[in-house]
Amino acid sequence: GPAARAWAWLASCVAMFGTKVSGFGKKAWKIGADDPRKAVHGLKVGLALTLVSVFYYTRPLYDGVGGAAMWAIMTVVVIFEYTVGGSVYKGFNRAIATASAGVIALGVNWVASKSGDKLEPVITCGSLFILAAAATFSRFIPTVKARFDYGVTIFILTYSLVAVSGYRVDELAALAQQRLVTIAIGIFICLAVCVLIWPVWAGQELHLLAVRNMEKLADAVEGCVEDYFSDADADAAKRARVSSSKSEGYKCVLNSKASEDSQANLARWEPAHGKFGFRHPYGQYAKLGAAMRHCAYCVETLNSCVGADVQAPEHVKRLLGDVCTRLGVQCGRVLREASSSFAEMTVSRTLDFVVADMNTAVHELQGDLRELPVSLAKESAAGSASLIDAMPLFTVASLLVEISARVETVV
Amino acid sequence: GPAARAWAWLASCVAMFGTKVSGFGKKAWKIGADDPRKAVHGLKVGLALTLVSVFYYTRPLYDGVGGAAMWAIMTVVVIFEYTVGGSVYKGFNRAIATASAGVIALGVNWVASKSGDKLEPVITCGSLFILAAAATFSRFIPTVKARFDYGVTIFILTYSLVAVSGYRVDELAALAQQRLVTIAIGIFICLAVCVLIWPVWAGQELHLLAVRNMEKLADAVEGCVEDYFSDADADAAKRARVSSSKSEGYKCVLNSKASEDSQANLARWEPAHGKFGFRHPYGQYAKLGAAMRHCAYCVETLNSCVGADVQAPEHVKRLLGDVCTRLGVQCGRVLREASSSFAEMTVSRTLDFVVADMNTAVHELQGDLRELPVSLAKESAAGSASLIDAMPLFTVASLLVEISARVETVV
Repeated sequence: GPAARAWAWLASCVAMFGTKVSGFGKKAWKIGADDPRKAVHGLKVGLALTLVSVFYYTRPLYDGVGGAAMWAIMTVVVIFEYTVGGSVYKGFNRAIATASAGVIALGVNWVASKSGDKLEPVITCGSLFILAAAATFSRFIPTVKARFDYGVTIFILTYSLVAVSGYRVDELAALAQQRLVTIAIGIFICLAVCVLIWPVWAGQELHLLAVRNMEKLADAVEGCVEDYFSDADADAAKRARVSSSKSEGYKCVLNSKASEDSQANLARWEPAHGKFGFRHPYGQYAKLGAAMRHCAYCVETLNSCVGADVQAPEHVKRLLGDVCTRLGVQCGRVLREASSSFAEMTVSRTLDFVVADMNTAVHELQGDLRELPVSLAKESAAGSASLIDAMPLFTVASLLVEISARVETVV
Repeated sequence: GPAARAWAWLASCVAMFGTKVSGFGKKAWKIGADDPRKAVHGLKVGLALTLVSVFYYTRPLYDGVGGAAMWAIMTVVVIFEYTVGGSVYKGFNRAIATASAGVIALGVNWVASKSGDKLEPVITCGSLFILAAAATFSRFIPTVKARFDYGVTIFILTYSLVAVSGYRVDELAALAQQRLVTIAIGIFICLAVCVLIWPVWAGQELHLLAVRNMEKLADAVEGCVEDYFSDADADAAKRARVSSSKSEGYKCVLNSKASEDSQANLARWEPAHGKFGFRHPYGQYAKLGAAMRHCAYCVETLNSCVGADVQAPEHVKRLLGDVCTRLGVQCGRVLREASSSFAEMTVSRTLDFVVADMNTAVHELQGDLRELPVSLAKESAAGSASLIDAMPLFTVASLLVEISARVETVV
């Protein structure tokens, strides 16, 4: 009957909801298991909030929502970020913006209060309009956007709150002072929890990202060359599997610009920690990243040559196979050497030798290319026809030469 | 004397400060002049803030900073974004998060108040810790991050404020209701100003970005090919100038992923406007962008071939110059045709013909390549030597073929 059908429909709905929730739960669990620091971050925020609440719960100063506790809680919720750099950036911006906006608002209020009842609202609202418009516009300026975006928001917020609320300056001053102290307590608790319990440094993250990207690039160069010159007899399915896991790593390198930029911005705010000094050259990471992407573009094109329909015949490929594979391996070695010396922030002695080896391999390849017609003619009678067949191979070889030149810029 | 020196130092300091300020001012003016909507955005924020202030200034309800006015002002400052989509996203998130967190907090408070004096703070702080940790962790889940990042922050904030402040539930309910109304008024004023006065639609921005990128790509393909086959006699300086302005446009395409993603995210929140329906397929823009970047990687490699040290000799270049230039022009035409039909959201009838023309050019080029040895042999006696010279040319030609294949995926 309809009741049974309705019941079945409801049951299926519940079951579907259940699968969705469990799928979501699994995804969340995987994120936490892959990087436990993310789960710890959640606990840290909970801890900081609880600390602030307890602090204000136990104080006689506490007097309902409108009281000072609110500002401490708000501060913790808003400025606690995943990385130390992010928290310092927001905390610093919040403190400076609140203080400066408060002072300016008090000054304007004082002027307004001296200028008569009629002019007072005009001055208050006019200054609010002008300052808000100017501050909002300033967020479009790139340097302000990168360093003080959050501060500008807080500046507008504080200024409008103080300006609109202001009737008597003497009261306001006390209020402003109390609020500043509360915000300072919030920032202090927040930074203490952030730095003392399993801190996540933006600088370190940036460093690791760069190292990982270099290794991925090395894998990708080697993988592409191997794929290209591997025996066609080998199982195609197996080849596809290997290529997808190894030689596709360059895609991460292509898309890492945004996260690199934001982490370099945050890392600037961090105090010295571990091997990262106070004025660690974070700007260099952006250049390194650009060089690596430059290299990855070329690997991308090489990879598409590997998967192209038109291929050189096997016997032609074999002529250059050895020297090309050697060059690919050398490129990979240079990148790995650079990444390991970069990971430990030491200047590698062997790096120069490895680069020299790579350049030798490049010269060998160029020499072999020059002699290609001769060796082709030896092998077959129809020399020029098979030289045309060798053309795709030449493209691959010259891309490799270009990649090795770009690898040198990375180093 | 030292006084004069101190005076000179001070004067130079003031002068330097003056130049810095004027440089900053010029930069700011240029940003505003390039895109007046940015300046207007600043004025709009000022207007919305002033409206809210006036609204609360004139009402008897107003009672100092702790009062309701604060929440309206805070709402306007925080949710007013450059694009309509951004404002709707933040407004919606704020409203839903405030309401849900308020309801949950009232429920927990009620349970806590029934469970005795000793258990009450434990329940309050415990629930705060658990909810804050869970909510913070949920921000690492990609879908939550993309759609509800701001909402989660507001949820934590509201929950902690209500949970910590709560002594008596009946008072709290009235407070929560008042606050919701205030926030609703703030959101309403903000959205009204944002939509009614010169609105900036994220969907439109995204659309324009895609169209501009296609045109830049077309310019870049044409520019590269022209640069490559232009007479070496032509003034090198002039060539460099032209190439930097025209064929470098692909760099914008390479770096546009982040802004595309964020705008597509915001555009989903926008109501129907102009030619953009309610369920406009914004997901397609991401695919289009990926295809264009795929194309741009190849253009990047081609561009580096143009600037390479090893070049084919002029007389060899001339053999393929015509057909390559034609293919380049055809690629550009396809992209331009696609971009203009895309700009007006119509299906172009001529597009298929243009693509067919491009494919004809590809076949011609491949045919010419196959006959290259013969035509080279005709021209010079040392056939095979100059065939090796032609190798860089072949790389360029095969890159062009690859680019045209990728252009077809863009269309």
